[in-house]
Amino acid sequence: MLGKIDHLGIAVDDLDAALAVYSTTLGLTVKRREVVEEQGVELAALVVGETLIELLHPLSGETPVGRFLSKRGPGLHHVAYRVEDIEAALGALREAGARLIDEVPRRGMGGSRIAFVHPSATAGVLTELVEPPRATDATVAE
Amino acid sequence: MLGKIDHLGIAVDDLDAALAVYSTTLGLTVKRREVVEEQGVELAALVVGETLIELLHPLSGETPVGRFLSKRGPGLHHVAYRVEDIEAALGALREAGARLIDEVPRRGMGGSRIAFVHPSATAGVLTELVEPPRATDATVAE
Repeated sequence: MLGKIDHLGIAVDDLDAALAVYSTTLGLTVKRREVVEEQGVELAALVVGETLIELLHPLSGETPVGRFLSKRGPGLHHVAYRVEDIEAALGALREAGARLIDEVPRRGMGGSRIAFVHPSATAGVLTELVEPPRATDATVAE
Repeated sequence: MLGKIDHLGIAVDDLDAALAVYSTTLGLTVKRREVVEEQGVELAALVVGETLIELLHPLSGETPVGRFLSKRGPGLHHVAYRVEDIEAALGALREAGARLIDEVPRRGMGGSRIAFVHPSATAGVLTELVEPPRATDATVAE
């Protein structure tokens, strides 16, 4: 059901410093850096194998990542997995009694559909499911 | 320098329950389950894309994962990356002023060489570098 790790989201208190470690020191390629207002973060994404490392810096303390940083400090915020059928994945989790944050998928970036699963359901790790846009959706959108 | 994510290490307080979520509910294939005395854990590894999810259950409270669980509860314990040349990676980190847990590599599983980097150096995430065994080493070992 899970295809691969789509990205790791890491909450950082200093985006430039974190970028310097992961790009300059460790040699990862920066794919993009942008402000994502809907998520309340400035984000830098770096490529590692088939996965992205997303460094997340909150735009304010009153955002999910801002509250996480205040409470826990910098560190892994969530793990996102690719799924082919997000409704099927949510259905399997619901049937297993897992606590969901998003009962139904919402729009993610680039036409993807995403849903978050509560950490209590997945061994303490906040988990995001990402269904990439389907080819047919892209055709319709054009 | 970093080739791909080798594995995510997740500290769990109930290995059977965590395995049920990641294998039965989310459909990942279990690659192995074993006690690793040197690391003080019972470990279950599941395949996701090019990466493994390693569920880590401490053999006692006096192990690194046991102390992590007592302090933080279940959740992501470390992220491990493949490197081709672990000395070069440690050298780059040292030169950048990063705090290392292992100044020199030590033996990991299956003939690999590993080293841990302190979370303060990598945006709050405990980081492991894994250099797989080289083909020539394997030949010598046979």
